[in-house]
Amino acid sequence: MLEELKAEVCRANLELQARGVVIYTWGNVSGIDREKGLVVIKPSGVDYDGMKPEDMVVVDLESGKTAEGKWKPSSDTATHLELYRRFPTLGGITHTHSVHAVAFAQAGRDIPALGTTHADYFYGAVPCTRELTRAEVEQDYELNTGRVIAETILARGIDPLAVPGIVVKNHGPFTWGTDAAASVYHAVVLEKVAEMTMKTLLLNPDAEMNRYILDKHYQRKHGPNAYYGQK
Amino acid sequence: MLEELKAEVCRANLELQARGVVIYTWGNVSGIDREKGLVVIKPSGVDYDGMKPEDMVVVDLESGKTAEGKWKPSSDTATHLELYRRFPTLGGITHTHSVHAVAFAQAGRDIPALGTTHADYFYGAVPCTRELTRAEVEQDYELNTGRVIAETILARGIDPLAVPGIVVKNHGPFTWGTDAAASVYHAVVLEKVAEMTMKTLLLNPDAEMNRYILDKHYQRKHGPNAYYGQK
Amino acid sequence: MLEELKAEVCRANLELQARGVVIYTWGNVSGIDREKGLVVIKPSGVDYDGMKPEDMVVVDLESGKTAEGKWKPSSDTATHLELYRRFPTLGGITHTHSVHAVAFAQAGRDIPALGTTHADYFYGAVPCTRELTRAEVEQDYELNTGRVIAETILARGIDPLAVPGIVVKNHGPFTWGTDAAASVYHAVVLEKVAEMTMKTLLLNPDAEMNRYILDKHYQRKHGPNAYYGQK
Amino acid sequence: MLEELKAEVCRANLELQARGVVIYTWGNVSGIDREKGLVVIKPSGVDYDGMKPEDMVVVDLESGKTAEGKWKPSSDTATHLELYRRFPTLGGITHTHSVHAVAFAQAGRDIPALGTTHADYFYGAVPCTRELTRAEVEQDYELNTGRVIAETILARGIDPLAVPGIVVKNHGPFTWGTDAAASVYHAVVLEKVAEMTMKTLLLNPDAEMNRYILDKHYQRKHGPNAYYGQK
Repeated sequence: MLEELKAEVCRANLELQARGVVIYTWGNVSGIDREKGLVVIKPSGVDYDGMKPEDMVVVDLESGKTAEGKWKPSSDTATHLELYRRFPTLGGITHTHSVHAVAFAQAGRDIPALGTTHADYFYGAVPCTRELTRAEVEQDYELNTGRVIAETILARGIDPLAVPGIVVKNHGPFTWGTDAAASVYHAVVLEKVAEMTMKTLLLNPDAEMNRYILDKHYQRKHGPNAYYGQK
Repeated sequence: MLEELKAEVCRANLELQARGVVIYTWGNVSGIDREKGLVVIKPSGVDYDGMKPEDMVVVDLESGKTAEGKWKPSSDTATHLELYRRFPTLGGITHTHSVHAVAFAQAGRDIPALGTTHADYFYGAVPCTRELTRAEVEQDYELNTGRVIAETILARGIDPLAVPGIVVKNHGPFTWGTDAAASVYHAVVLEKVAEMTMKTLLLNPDAEMNRYILDKHYQRKHGPNAYYGQK
Repeated sequence: MLEELKAEVCRANLELQARGVVIYTWGNVSGIDREKGLVVIKPSGVDYDGMKPEDMVVVDLESGKTAEGKWKPSSDTATHLELYRRFPTLGGITHTHSVHAVAFAQAGRDIPALGTTHADYFYGAVPCTRELTRAEVEQDYELNTGRVIAETILARGIDPLAVPGIVVKNHGPFTWGTDAAASVYHAVVLEKVAEMTMKTLLLNPDAEMNRYILDKHYQRKHGPNAYYGQK
Repeated sequence: MLEELKAEVCRANLELQARGVVIYTWGNVSGIDREKGLVVIKPSGVDYDGMKPEDMVVVDLESGKTAEGKWKPSSDTATHLELYRRFPTLGGITHTHSVHAVAFAQAGRDIPALGTTHADYFYGAVPCTRELTRAEVEQDYELNTGRVIAETILARGIDPLAVPGIVVKNHGPFTWGTDAAASVYHAVVLEKVAEMTMKTLLLNPDAEMNRYILDKHYQRKHGPNAYYGQK
C-alpha cells in the first residue's frame, strides 16, 4: 500500500544522510496521505545504508497503530502524528539532531531572524519551545513533545508553513513542509541558518534585522506577488 | 548568442557549488559583454545539478529586459546590472550566502584586514554596507541593493577591483572581478578570509595589522612591480 | 589465534578513520576475549591505510606481554588493559584525539548532559579526570592513565556501560562498549556531542537539562522497558 | 637534476591539497640537498592540479638564483632559504594559510601547549613572531620574514626540530622537518592542534598543562628512550 509515498519518504530519509545532517540512525522523516489518514515513517533505529521503500512503516493517523510494515515505526512517531493532527497543511515532517540547531535547542534560545537567508525560508524567529514538565516527560513523552510544539506555534500565532520549523528545548529541531522532501529541505536550511546565526552572535551579540527586510525577502519568495524562481 | 560567455558563466556558477560556498539554488554568477551591453546570468531558483550553458539568461545592461533565454533571470539581476553600470571595470559578479561572510553581514561589521591572506586579495577592509531604508526595501529592492553597494564603495573612495567584494548588511557577500571566474574566485577567498577573521577576533578582539603589511602584500601581487606568480 | 577478534578490531580501527575522528596514526581500538584473557589491539604508530587483521597485536590481559604479533602494540596498551581489568563488562575500548572532546579534556571540564543526543548514549555528564601527578606521569604513565580513569568512574559511582566514555585531563577521550565496534560508535557520538555542547555553551554559558529528561531518554533506549529500535 | 628530490617535493606539495590545508595556489613546500647546496621548491602561483616533478624549481641556497626550472620559484623562496641557512638540521619547509594557525598568527598569540596532541609533536608553545617593522617589510620582505623567524627561535632557545613550526604575526604558519614530507606532516598537525587550542580557550581561557606532561609525551615519542611507534 502507498508505494509511491513510501518511495518518496525513503528518498527523503536518505537525503538527510546525503546532506550531512544525520549520522548513524539519527533523525527521521515522514509523509502523510491525508485522504487515507495514513502516515509513512522511517523504522526505529535502522541504518540509512541500504534502506528501501519497503522498510518504511505505515501508521494510522488517529490511532497510531501500524497499518503495514515489518519494522517498528520511529520512536518519535507520536510527535509526528500529533503535528499532522493539529496542523492540516503539513504534508511531511523531519526530525534531526543537526549540530547548530541542537545548540540553540540546548541553549533554550529562539533562532532569531538576522538575515535574508533566514527570511527566505522562515518568516520570523524559529521558536524554541518551553521545557516539558516532569509529568509530560514521564508519560506520553513523544505525544507531549508534539503538543508543546503545537502550543508554541499557536501561542505565537504562527502559520506553520510560514515558519516551517522549531527547536524543542534540550532536544533538537523538527521541520515540516507540504511534503516529505520539503521538510528535509527545511531541515538542511535550518541547520545552515542556525550556524550563520550562532556565528553572527559571536561577532555581535546585539545583532538584529529590521522587520521590513524580513517581510520583503519572505514575500518575494512566498507572497502573493512572489517573483523568485520560475513560474 | 554569446555562446562563449554563456559557457563561461555556467562554469563559474558550477564552480560555486564545487567549492562549497552554496547549497541548493543559492547564489548566482554573471558575466558581461561590454561591447554588446549584454549581461549573462544564472536563471532564478534553478538547481546547479545538470545546469547547462543554454540555461543561462541574457539580459540587457540598460533596460534589464531579457534578450534571450528560456528561464527568468536571477531575482538579484537588478543588483548585478547596477554594479556593472556604476563600475565599468567589472567583468563578472558573484553573490553567495556563504556562512562566515554572511555572519559579518548579519553582524553589521566590516571584515577588517588582519593578515596577509586578506591583503593578498583585498586592499583594505571588506566593507559592510549600511542598512537599506524601508522605502529602499519596499520599492526596487534589488536595484537599491546595487545602489547601496555603489554608495559604500564611492563614499570610502575604494577602487572596486582593489577591494573586489563587500557584504550587504543583513544579507551577504557580493564579489566581482575582471570576469565571471575571477568573481567566483573572490567569493571563495572572501569566505575563507571571513572565517579566519572571525576566529582571530575570538582569540583577540583587538587584533589589527599595520598598514604597511597590507600595502606590501597587495602590491607584491597586484602593484606595478608585482612579483607573485608567473609572467 | 583469535582470527575473528583480530578482524573485528581491525575493522573497528579503520572505522575510526572513515568517521573522521582520527588522522595519520592517531587513535587506537582494542577488543577482548574474556575467556582466554587476551586483548587484541592496534599496533603502535602504524598507518590506517592498508592495515590488515594480521597487523593486530595480541597481548595478555594480566602481564601485558605480547602473545602474538609482528608489531609492538599501541603505546596506550597499558591504559586499555587496566580498564579491562577494573571493569569486567567492557568488551572494547577506543582512544582518539577528536577535536571537540580534546577541547573539553584540555579545558579540564566535564561534558555536561545538556540535551537528548547526549542522554541517548551517556547517562549523565561525561567526566573529565583529575590531572595526573608528576609521579604518576613519570613512572608507569599509561597504567596510571587507566587508574585515574577508574578512580574517576568509581568516585562518581558510575556504571561504565551507562556512561561509556571519559576525557582525560590535558589528553583526550577514551570510550568503551560491549565490543570494539560499540567503543568506536561511542567515540564518534562523543565527538558530536562535545561539539554540540561546546556550541551550546557559547550561546548560553548557563545551559542545563533537567534530570528527568536525561532519565527518560536514556531509559527509552537502554532501560528495562526500552522501546527505541527493533527487538 | 635532483630528480628524486623534485619528485619528493612535488608529492609533498600535492599532499598539502589532499589534506585540506590549502586552496588554489596557496602554500608551498621545499626540500634541500645539503651536499649540493640546492633547494627544490614549488613554482610561484601555479595550481596544484596537474603539478608534476618537472614543474619544481631548483634554487641555489646561497645566492637564491634559479639553477633549473621553467617557472619562477615561490615568492616565499627567500624565507625558506634563510631558514635553511640558519638551521642546518632542516631538510624540508612548508608554508600554508591554514585557517586556525592563521587565526593565532593574526591574533598575535603563541599557540600554548595545552594537551598531549600538541606535546606529541611540539615541545612547548608554538611561538608567534613579533611584527616586522616598516623597514623590514618594505625592503627584502621575504628574507626578513626568515630572519624574524630565526630571531624568535634563537631568542627563546628553541631547537627547531623539537618545535617544528611557528606562526608569523599577521601572516601564518611555517613548519619544517627532516625532509619535505615531514614538514607537511607538521603543517597538518599544527592546524589540527591550533583548532583544538582555540576551542579549548573558548571553553576555558585559563587552560594550561603542567610541564611534566609535556616532557613525558614529547620524550615518549622523540626522546632517547622513545617507545612510541615501531623500531
